[in-house]
Amino acid sequence: MTKKTNQQWGGRFSESMDGLILQFNASVDFDQRLAMQDIAGSRAHATMLAAQGILTPAELSDIDTGLTQIQQSIHDGTFEWSTELEDVHMNIEARLTELIGLAGKKLHTGRSRNDQVATDIRLYLRGAIDTLRMDLGYLMQAIVDLADQETDTIMPGFTHLQSAQPVTFGHHLLAWFEMLKRDASRLTDCRERLNQCPLGAAALAGTSYPINRQQTADLLGFDTVCANSLDAVSDRDFAIEFCSAASILAMHLSRMAEEMIIWNSQQFQFVDLPDRFCTGSSIMPQKKNPDIAELVRGKTGRVYGNLMTLLTLMKSQPLAYNKDNQEDKTPLFDSIDTVSACVQAFAGMIPHIRANRDAMKLAAKNGYATATDLADYLVKKGVAFRDAHEVVGKAVAMAIRENCALDELDLAALQTHSSMIESDVYDILRVEGSVKSRNHVGGTAPEQVSAAVNAAKVFLTEMMAVKR
Amino acid sequence: MTKKTNQQWGGRFSESMDGLILQFNASVDFDQRLAMQDIAGSRAHATMLAAQGILTPAELSDIDTGLTQIQQSIHDGTFEWSTELEDVHMNIEARLTELIGLAGKKLHTGRSRNDQVATDIRLYLRGAIDTLRMDLGYLMQAIVDLADQETDTIMPGFTHLQSAQPVTFGHHLLAWFEMLKRDASRLTDCRERLNQCPLGAAALAGTSYPINRQQTADLLGFDTVCANSLDAVSDRDFAIEFCSAASILAMHLSRMAEEMIIWNSQQFQFVDLPDRFCTGSSIMPQKKNPDIAELVRGKTGRVYGNLMTLLTLMKSQPLAYNKDNQEDKTPLFDSIDTVSACVQAFAGMIPHIRANRDAMKLAAKNGYATATDLADYLVKKGVAFRDAHEVVGKAVAMAIRENCALDELDLAALQTHSSMIESDVYDILRVEGSVKSRNHVGGTAPEQVSAAVNAAKVFLTEMMAVKR
Amino acid sequence: MTKKTNQQWGGRFSESMDGLILQFNASVDFDQRLAMQDIAGSRAHATMLAAQGILTPAELSDIDTGLTQIQQSIHDGTFEWSTELEDVHMNIEARLTELIGLAGKKLHTGRSRNDQVATDIRLYLRGAIDTLRMDLGYLMQAIVDLADQETDTIMPGFTHLQSAQPVTFGHHLLAWFEMLKRDASRLTDCRERLNQCPLGAAALAGTSYPINRQQTADLLGFDTVCANSLDAVSDRDFAIEFCSAASILAMHLSRMAEEMIIWNSQQFQFVDLPDRFCTGSSIMPQKKNPDIAELVRGKTGRVYGNLMTLLTLMKSQPLAYNKDNQEDKTPLFDSIDTVSACVQAFAGMIPHIRANRDAMKLAAKNGYATATDLADYLVKKGVAFRDAHEVVGKAVAMAIRENCALDELDLAALQTHSSMIESDVYDILRVEGSVKSRNHVGGTAPEQVSAAVNAAKVFLTEMMAVKR
Amino acid sequence: MTKKTNQQWGGRFSESMDGLILQFNASVDFDQRLAMQDIAGSRAHATMLAAQGILTPAELSDIDTGLTQIQQSIHDGTFEWSTELEDVHMNIEARLTELIGLAGKKLHTGRSRNDQVATDIRLYLRGAIDTLRMDLGYLMQAIVDLADQETDTIMPGFTHLQSAQPVTFGHHLLAWFEMLKRDASRLTDCRERLNQCPLGAAALAGTSYPINRQQTADLLGFDTVCANSLDAVSDRDFAIEFCSAASILAMHLSRMAEEMIIWNSQQFQFVDLPDRFCTGSSIMPQKKNPDIAELVRGKTGRVYGNLMTLLTLMKSQPLAYNKDNQEDKTPLFDSIDTVSACVQAFAGMIPHIRANRDAMKLAAKNGYATATDLADYLVKKGVAFRDAHEVVGKAVAMAIRENCALDELDLAALQTHSSMIESDVYDILRVEGSVKSRNHVGGTAPEQVSAAVNAAKVFLTEMMAVKR
Repeated sequence: MTKKTNQQWGGRFSESMDGLILQFNASVDFDQRLAMQDIAGSRAHATMLAAQGILTPAELSDIDTGLTQIQQSIHDGTFEWSTELEDVHMNIEARLTELIGLAGKKLHTGRSRNDQVATDIRLYLRGAIDTLRMDLGYLMQAIVDLADQETDTIMPGFTHLQSAQPVTFGHHLLAWFEMLKRDASRLTDCRERLNQCPLGAAALAGTSYPINRQQTADLLGFDTVCANSLDAVSDRDFAIEFCSAASILAMHLSRMAEEMIIWNSQQFQFVDLPDRFCTGSSIMPQKKNPDIAELVRGKTGRVYGNLMTLLTLMKSQPLAYNKDNQEDKTPLFDSIDTVSACVQAFAGMIPHIRANRDAMKLAAKNGYATATDLADYLVKKGVAFRDAHEVVGKAVAMAIRENCALDELDLAALQTHSSMIESDVYDILRVEGSVKSRNHVGGTAPEQVSAAVNAAKVFLTEMMAVKR
Repeated sequence: MTKKTNQQWGGRFSESMDGLILQFNASVDFDQRLAMQDIAGSRAHATMLAAQGILTPAELSDIDTGLTQIQQSIHDGTFEWSTELEDVHMNIEARLTELIGLAGKKLHTGRSRNDQVATDIRLYLRGAIDTLRMDLGYLMQAIVDLADQETDTIMPGFTHLQSAQPVTFGHHLLAWFEMLKRDASRLTDCRERLNQCPLGAAALAGTSYPINRQQTADLLGFDTVCANSLDAVSDRDFAIEFCSAASILAMHLSRMAEEMIIWNSQQFQFVDLPDRFCTGSSIMPQKKNPDIAELVRGKTGRVYGNLMTLLTLMKSQPLAYNKDNQEDKTPLFDSIDTVSACVQAFAGMIPHIRANRDAMKLAAKNGYATATDLADYLVKKGVAFRDAHEVVGKAVAMAIRENCALDELDLAALQTHSSMIESDVYDILRVEGSVKSRNHVGGTAPEQVSAAVNAAKVFLTEMMAVKR
Repeated sequence: MTKKTNQQWGGRFSESMDGLILQFNASVDFDQRLAMQDIAGSRAHATMLAAQGILTPAELSDIDTGLTQIQQSIHDGTFEWSTELEDVHMNIEARLTELIGLAGKKLHTGRSRNDQVATDIRLYLRGAIDTLRMDLGYLMQAIVDLADQETDTIMPGFTHLQSAQPVTFGHHLLAWFEMLKRDASRLTDCRERLNQCPLGAAALAGTSYPINRQQTADLLGFDTVCANSLDAVSDRDFAIEFCSAASILAMHLSRMAEEMIIWNSQQFQFVDLPDRFCTGSSIMPQKKNPDIAELVRGKTGRVYGNLMTLLTLMKSQPLAYNKDNQEDKTPLFDSIDTVSACVQAFAGMIPHIRANRDAMKLAAKNGYATATDLADYLVKKGVAFRDAHEVVGKAVAMAIRENCALDELDLAALQTHSSMIESDVYDILRVEGSVKSRNHVGGTAPEQVSAAVNAAKVFLTEMMAVKR
Repeated sequence: MTKKTNQQWGGRFSESMDGLILQFNASVDFDQRLAMQDIAGSRAHATMLAAQGILTPAELSDIDTGLTQIQQSIHDGTFEWSTELEDVHMNIEARLTELIGLAGKKLHTGRSRNDQVATDIRLYLRGAIDTLRMDLGYLMQAIVDLADQETDTIMPGFTHLQSAQPVTFGHHLLAWFEMLKRDASRLTDCRERLNQCPLGAAALAGTSYPINRQQTADLLGFDTVCANSLDAVSDRDFAIEFCSAASILAMHLSRMAEEMIIWNSQQFQFVDLPDRFCTGSSIMPQKKNPDIAELVRGKTGRVYGNLMTLLTLMKSQPLAYNKDNQEDKTPLFDSIDTVSACVQAFAGMIPHIRANRDAMKLAAKNGYATATDLADYLVKKGVAFRDAHEVVGKAVAMAIRENCALDELDLAALQTHSSMIESDVYDILRVEGSVKSRNHVGGTAPEQVSAAVNAAKVFLTEMMAVKR
């Protein structure tokens, strides 16, 4: 009957089913990325087995030789991956047995693909985090270097995309630095939490062989062993936690991207983005599409999506291992690749951004961004809040009528609104004075920004010195 | 200074930046999937341009010849894709110009990559929906065929994973059918809404050439032209709507998968899943891991994730086209591929599921699933609700004590609880009687299930007859 | 032992457990919103039961009177909701029984809370969609009215937030209209798909009472009955589909919001947003925070989140009803409320937006947005593409040097770049000419925009005429 | 004209616009939860201002008195919240000024609502994390206590929901413990990262008043001050990071819930869930709906949804503060409430779970779960892998034929498959022996489980001792 059904489908379906299922089931297309980690894990496991007398020295030696040969051929691109062998583990094991005989199979003593893959992913992710943290460091360095050049460049500080108060461009850039500092810190926490060795959990319950889990863990640089075998093979928290940290990082990059896109518009003209990171138009030379910034902004989507993928994947799975988990790798790898590329792209681009200092300053002045300072000035002189606000409102209205900046009104004009106003008012009416007056930790005064730049450099030196 | 910064990075970074940016910017790796649609769009556009006198007949003929040649080489796998040429459009256009000279460039008259890519994706997705609807039809057919065999197979109907009332297996399967029917309907709506032609919108504002948009639309099988050029190039609703319909479909498949996994457990043993769709164990022949069902369940994650990717991508993008949109293709393609593969896998698997009718029936009986029927029986005989409930509670308690099913208590025993109970009670106490009594449209009586199977067959015949 | 454990927790925990569980389990806090739908469903069910002879006319009459009384007290706010009675259904049923005695309980014959709640939500959502479609209509009307005033207002059309080509503001607004038109269409589809009656599915399997499902469906305005009882009680597709349509709508609103925020910046100054929809500053009168637009943009998040909530909720739930489903209402209600409020807010705000036509036009001119038109002009005169592009590049460079717009270069100056340039070039160099030349369906020519406005008005009249 | 438009809408719309906008804009309905934190922040700020000479001692005293009075009235429920005053900050400030006059307004010197709300949320979340960690500790305690009772209770360990190898129930429970341990650790990291004081950032740029940020931070128990004022007011990482940690926690709870639901089914019967946490049926006394477990599983959805809400909210927001951020509170509060309630519910339920030890053991035996042990036994005796597997396959097939467990085959029968099998084989064929043999750190041997229980108790004592 089934056959009949299939015929009715014109054969299209039934014939290809075996291939489809094979393809559906196999993971080697994407998990071969774990090959080096798989081999490292096998070496450590074999060393431990030999130390425990489960493998002979000769077997260990054979395994070592075989794995070296496989490692080389993968490196050279000559290794033949087979979909029939399903995954990276079986491909390597089968080849090893081909090369060295039954000792290859004995390597699998006291372990299972379940603890093996859990180990491989942790090793892979650990390495990826280390690389990403370095790249993040380069990006942070680029930001600090630019901030260092722009500690006293004045621009409007925005709230609601409206000029609110003048700030320095360096100060704004250091806000980016702070975001990324938290990202680095989250990555460190994630790395620490994942650095436990699942090997020895075997399929789910542990093994009856007299293994030494601590030795394997030590050989692989894990801080400790996973404390429960069922948890060891079913846990994918590390992948989710990484994708979550990556999502927050991507969100930060999207905010930076949005600002660069707006600043690069012909209406703002606050910055010139470097040509290599934009596309131009042969017939409109003034046009500069901020492609890289837009792509980084757009890629936020997939990083969020990968997080949702993994959370959905793990929702209400009973313990211990289920085949669902094969789906953990694609989103994890994609988030690693995506945020790494975005961080590198911005690290390459930011050193070449040119601030249009005049345009920035003009915007700050035209935005009457020191109106708040005038109010504070009056209050400090003893004027009541309400009265101060009224005075300022009138002064700004006058400036709008005169089509000038606040500090372009002369003293007599200002004094028509309040007799408390004296010549020292210009110290704060000028955007330079306004900025200078916000002189406390975290404030926008150039002096504070310079101090913050220096602190950031110290931080970075320490952060980049952590070699793993 | 920047150079210094880069050196400080050990050169790793700066040297690779150009390659990185090229890679980051280029989309040809994934958008070459649109090649056939791109060529079809170009043919239609060229035909229209010639009809409007913008191209000469000779130019049209050259373009036609050149495109045929390119189409063939892509089909043969000999076309040389170049990352430098960024995307599928430029690759084909460059090759065309190489082949036929300047007429190749004139093809781009009155269009832009912005309306071109929007057209290509719509054409691609339209075709993908048509294929998916057919595959969905095969899966629905498989379900109906199985339901047809199991119209009077009794199993426990569950609420809260607790036996609640007996149903037939055929009835349960038809619940799956109803879910998928809605999925097919959503795909149809999505197809209808997307079937509008963006060509002619050019970069964003339309073109000053005397084009005939309706002709291009007709040639490409679009129902109409997009009514606004800005919207035409910035709209990606169709991709989101498809990914949303795919998510609901994936959710349905995850529910079916979950049930098959539970039914396949050694504790339930309701079904035997076909070997090809499971993996076994050489040493535990009774073990049958429902891998395909688990993978389908797991793949729900990526389908949800892709939807979130696209929603995030489009959030708060100003009009019209931004480079962010290049990120629309990967998630869309992945959702198409994933749900298609899942639907095909289940369509291949379900015809081979074997119901363990005895185990199902035994579970229905042991669950006292006809207790509700007994209550209804008493109420119909005039017993007050509360009294009926009390009687039933006592009868079930007796059966538990006797370790038997309700219909295994003899009449005298039953009558100790209520004198209203007569010999006809067994008609409804037996699971067969219970099931038979739910005899209204949508109910579980075998008669109704058969009628529903027939209606489903009629529906499917009509659905599959819509050729596009 | 347990007691000991609890004591160890200082009693905090154990004592409050009963209250916690009661609260955790109960849904009446949020599902009382369904009260009117619950009563309507009960009336229809009772009417059918009486028609089938299952209820007496007197019982029907009592039920009717009782329900009217309850309806009134809920309306008046005097109904006493009880958490102990868990949900809206039990609260109303208990009160009915209190008012009219056992006939109240008989109302529950042939139905269950499972089909009852499914019916209530569908009725509620159906009404909510009808209201939302009307509000969407008002918003679309507001957009069309504004577009009607601005059919020939010229602004830069942006790609990559860079001036690309001049468009009219009316044309841009109609892009918004097209987005919302698709939203309305998706809502209509969702409404149609949900409009099936679950009543009669009872707990999951149907009922043994001789019910007439079609009659109940007719009385409640459903198009048909749900075809399968298991599906009827477990299906929540309609909630997900609505939340998905709401997400796309929210995404559209976020794009409109983003544009208004950017246009409202002091750097763009394209529009004045109405005061009531902004907050100002007493001391910076020029500052106008576009609060409502920002809130609408921000609320996109919760609408997306609600969709993800529901998709997660339903993932891999076995049939039929599980208590998980109680969680369906909060996200659904929140998405209804949120998009309704956002649509209303924009419908109120848009009629009061004032376009700064001078600023818009100046930006279009300064952006050299007609450079493409010049290239097309030359190509139409027979100049080869490459040569045309070179000419245009030089002309724009000249204009930049002269600090003037393209159409401010005199003919002699232009002709230094190409002898093909004649005095008619100003027709297309001026932004008015450029816009006018894009004169095809969907193009930005004022003539086309007027036609599109008229078509939109016709569409709206029809859309708003569909009374339900 | 606008008026006309509105009339056309039957007045429905225009009249209610002011109320709608007020409601839309106001946050006091949900942010009044921050009242105690707002008052604490104000006290600290006032104390610092007085220490810096910006407030007089008398003003500080007045503020202190006024805040105490307000605190009391909020506590008593007599405080009158006003939507017109928008948010919690303005409500309290307005009331303070009402009570103590202008000193109330002076409290706002050197701060802004932007840094104020950022401080309030951090304080609130910090407290919520501390409470959640305690509740999590109670849940972990409940799990360890149950594990302690079940260290040698044998059950099948599942992979793919198929019996794979015997484990102990205590061991399985400790897998849950490990999951939650990571959750506690993530909460600790989140708390540490958020514990920085934004006060002093003012609107976005800092203030010109001579404030002492460190003092305010110290008074409020912050570890340090936020290092950049722009970042301080725009950062919402902490909310996202918490919602992410909550999502992983909810995922863990959903897995535990799923297992309890399956174990509670009539087919598994591994556990009896306590009555208070289930609902029963008056007529089917054997039915026990695991409502609380289902609700916990279902609530995973909203916790994931809230995370997606916040990620979407922050995507591509330019610095510094935008009104969008008002939307941060509802999802954060909902995730706090939801996971807290779920953790408490399980902490209350788990101590009352009764393991059906016989059913568990029988399932382990019937699953031939020691087949792997037999293979290992043979390999250890020198039999080659492939041969060992063949022997085991035959032995299991024999047991299936005989309808008995593996350890119920007599020695002679077993030896027909391999002469290497000796009487000591029963040590590992019995599930007890199998379990006992997995005797290494993290393995399922009762000895190891007891050790793990003890380690868990030590961990918990330390974790719960951290008082904040």
